[in-house]
Amino acid sequence: MTEVDAKKPQESLQDRLAQVVELLHRHKVVEDLTHRQEGQHQDLVENLVHRQNLAELQRRLDDLHPADVAHILEALPLDDRLTIWQLVKAERDGDILLEVSDAVRETLLADMDDHEILAAAKEMDADELADLASELPRDVVHELMESLDAQQRERVRSALSYEEEQVGALMDFEMVTIREDVSLEVVLRYLRRLKELPGHTDKLFVVDYDGVLKGVLPIKRLLVNDPERLVSEVMATDPVGFHPDEDAYDAAQAFERYDLISAPVVDKNGKLIGRLTIDEMVDLIREESESEVLNMAGLREEEDIFASVWKSLRNRWAWLAINLITAFLASRVIGLFEGSIEKLVALAALMPIVAGIGGNSGNQTITMIVRAMALDQVSTGNTSRLIRKELGVSLINGLVWGGVIGVVAFLLYDSWSLGVVMTAAMTLNLLLAALMGVLIPMTLVRMGRDPAMGASVMITAVTDSGGFFIFLGLASVFLL
Amino acid sequence: MTEVDAKKPQESLQDRLAQVVELLHRHKVVEDLTHRQEGQHQDLVENLVHRQNLAELQRRLDDLHPADVAHILEALPLDDRLTIWQLVKAERDGDILLEVSDAVRETLLADMDDHEILAAAKEMDADELADLASELPRDVVHELMESLDAQQRERVRSALSYEEEQVGALMDFEMVTIREDVSLEVVLRYLRRLKELPGHTDKLFVVDYDGVLKGVLPIKRLLVNDPERLVSEVMATDPVGFHPDEDAYDAAQAFERYDLISAPVVDKNGKLIGRLTIDEMVDLIREESESEVLNMAGLREEEDIFASVWKSLRNRWAWLAINLITAFLASRVIGLFEGSIEKLVALAALMPIVAGIGGNSGNQTITMIVRAMALDQVSTGNTSRLIRKELGVSLINGLVWGGVIGVVAFLLYDSWSLGVVMTAAMTLNLLLAALMGVLIPMTLVRMGRDPAMGASVMITAVTDSGGFFIFLGLASVFLL
Repeated sequence: MTEVDAKKPQESLQDRLAQVVELLHRHKVVEDLTHRQEGQHQDLVENLVHRQNLAELQRRLDDLHPADVAHILEALPLDDRLTIWQLVKAERDGDILLEVSDAVRETLLADMDDHEILAAAKEMDADELADLASELPRDVVHELMESLDAQQRERVRSALSYEEEQVGALMDFEMVTIREDVSLEVVLRYLRRLKELPGHTDKLFVVDYDGVLKGVLPIKRLLVNDPERLVSEVMATDPVGFHPDEDAYDAAQAFERYDLISAPVVDKNGKLIGRLTIDEMVDLIREESESEVLNMAGLREEEDIFASVWKSLRNRWAWLAINLITAFLASRVIGLFEGSIEKLVALAALMPIVAGIGGNSGNQTITMIVRAMALDQVSTGNTSRLIRKELGVSLINGLVWGGVIGVVAFLLYDSWSLGVVMTAAMTLNLLLAALMGVLIPMTLVRMGRDPAMGASVMITAVTDSGGFFIFLGLASVFLL
Repeated sequence: MTEVDAKKPQESLQDRLAQVVELLHRHKVVEDLTHRQEGQHQDLVENLVHRQNLAELQRRLDDLHPADVAHILEALPLDDRLTIWQLVKAERDGDILLEVSDAVRETLLADMDDHEILAAAKEMDADELADLASELPRDVVHELMESLDAQQRERVRSALSYEEEQVGALMDFEMVTIREDVSLEVVLRYLRRLKELPGHTDKLFVVDYDGVLKGVLPIKRLLVNDPERLVSEVMATDPVGFHPDEDAYDAAQAFERYDLISAPVVDKNGKLIGRLTIDEMVDLIREESESEVLNMAGLREEEDIFASVWKSLRNRWAWLAINLITAFLASRVIGLFEGSIEKLVALAALMPIVAGIGGNSGNQTITMIVRAMALDQVSTGNTSRLIRKELGVSLINGLVWGGVIGVVAFLLYDSWSLGVVMTAAMTLNLLLAALMGVLIPMTLVRMGRDPAMGASVMITAVTDSGGFFIFLGLASVFLL
């Protein structure tokens, strides 16, 4: 983690992307021309222009922060992405690989040979290596591990031993540790000898001779206190800390709540084994909310927008298939009432309104609940209150909007009884939507699942089948 | 912003919430009893128990970090929320008000008189006051402004002059500034005299006599360099900085990309006027992704889960009404084909499958695109590629799943031509869904709107009406 010197912040990401795309485009046009006119005498000229364009593009890329290059790679289709990737200086490969999303990283790694991957990975810290290890070829990982010293190797192993969503998988090992029985002056001199401090060092970790965490010394306190004072007098003795097997998302929420920059990770004996930093937590917060959006629509997380058609299909087919089954069930519900529809074809035209409004309203409820659950605002104690509130909203919506549609149905088909059935069906389906909008995510959580998982598909399934059944059922009983 | 001493991080938020709810519940049971048995001799005993419970609850609340109290307030229904709020010590009101969401803050402020609000607000910094000002009663704001010194008043005014989504509205004024022609030793002594440094001070701002930003001195460099060296030799001269009228979300993305902790805000003459810190940016990233989820479902941002039924209705009715219109249009599309349905009632049962799968698939596409847009990955240059990819995915999905459903339709109704019409209609509707899933958010952005706004309602409208029209149209032409 190096200090950032990103230039021209006024220049937006979109601008940078547009510039690179333009340079790339110019390069490709020339390439096309060269290919088409091979063997002709313009060759030489065009080759020159071509090379000039490439050189300009490369200069532009060298100027950019690794995170910006990563962003550009994300936003380009595969062939353009690889053209850019080949222009990036080898020594920056590692930094950029760490910045791109998993889906894009896979495409970049596939384009590198073992030698290149090895060179890129050698620049990385233990925690970064552990992040990438699962995606690297087996013999590259083996060779990498061989090249590490014992401590580093131990660290990579330890980071690899935790699940992706545990604190242990996200911690790094770049903490500066001090003893509590020295003066701040000594600490200041010690830091000067280090020449460089790790990124996000807002506190030093105070440990005893066994490596047990005794407290933290915030840099702020180091700076404002008399250098004669001892670390033990100035340090905070009860800092927010985490265990490696805690849920990383809980840690991220703690960072957000307590405005932390870094925090110690200790094992069950209180020994300091690593630290968490805000940058990893921000990434996690971002990823969590993204996967919430995607999961609700029945998408898995990993799909870059230029993924191949085949990868996209795999990402989407599962929920589509489930949706197909639920749609088929809804269709069979209608099938039950084919006799009624034959007698009164208006039912066929009106039934999608009942189902559609229920789906929309149910989606609103389920979105609210999933969000409140992500923020830990829903507990078993308040379920019944939530259901009552949502039922209240639905009842009013049903009577009001159902009433409007009832009047419209009456005007269209000149049957007041059809209008009344319409209003009643809409109200009942909205109540069903509200109830299921609360119960579906809660049940998923009790089953240990992600409450957002396919929430939208499931609620729509219920409101479709339910809506058809309620409306056609009521109509069959009261109208025919 | 004070240093955090949040205790027992192992104890989860859910635990804390559960404890408070339990204490609150015990308190309420006793209260109920007391009310029922008024005038009887148990009164005294019960009153004692009652007071003990309240005292325990208060002790528990005093132990909690303001952010945790805020979280508990968010998760409670209105009456419980106000009971807790009244137990919170007056001097902590300000901190907690700054932590809760806008919707909950409104309910808390409504419960306070002007005197209490004034006391809470007097503890706040200029930027915090500016955040709250719009929600405070007019005369309270007036009185507050009177009580500030000229510089503070100017700062509040300046912060208030920016839109909510501009950098200027999120900056604070707690920067430590130094001159470039002094030694690090002098800087260290200066800091010691300050007694306390503002939260998130990872760099000092180097300004000239006119207040123009010359560079930043990262604390890391201050600590590791020889104290004899001059600030000008050690500082970074080209730091990432922002203008107050820039989009705050762009700034948040820059914080995320470049792993920033704080960054200077400068006016157009290069004068330092404030700073941004990572904690504000994290909040913004969280809010942005939340509003994306909510907007897609056609909800506005501000609805706490225990909002009154009336407030919830207002939050939801607009998109429900739009949905009602679109559902009505879909119903009229079916109305056009009532003759066909009368002749072949199977059409009524099969048509929701075509519409439903289209809606689900369209929602997957639109979710992908909205997300990619939020991450700035979509530019006008790659639209056609995106459309081609999504059309490809849909074509295959349509032929495969449409084929499956076609076979099922054939088996159910023993008509191979019905099966073929079903497959064709599903494929066409999926293609329509893919096209509109890309074009709807792009059109919204070109119109200067939020691409997520009601995206789900709109795509469903298209795939419903479109699906019915395509399926019933094909059936009328080829089957009857």
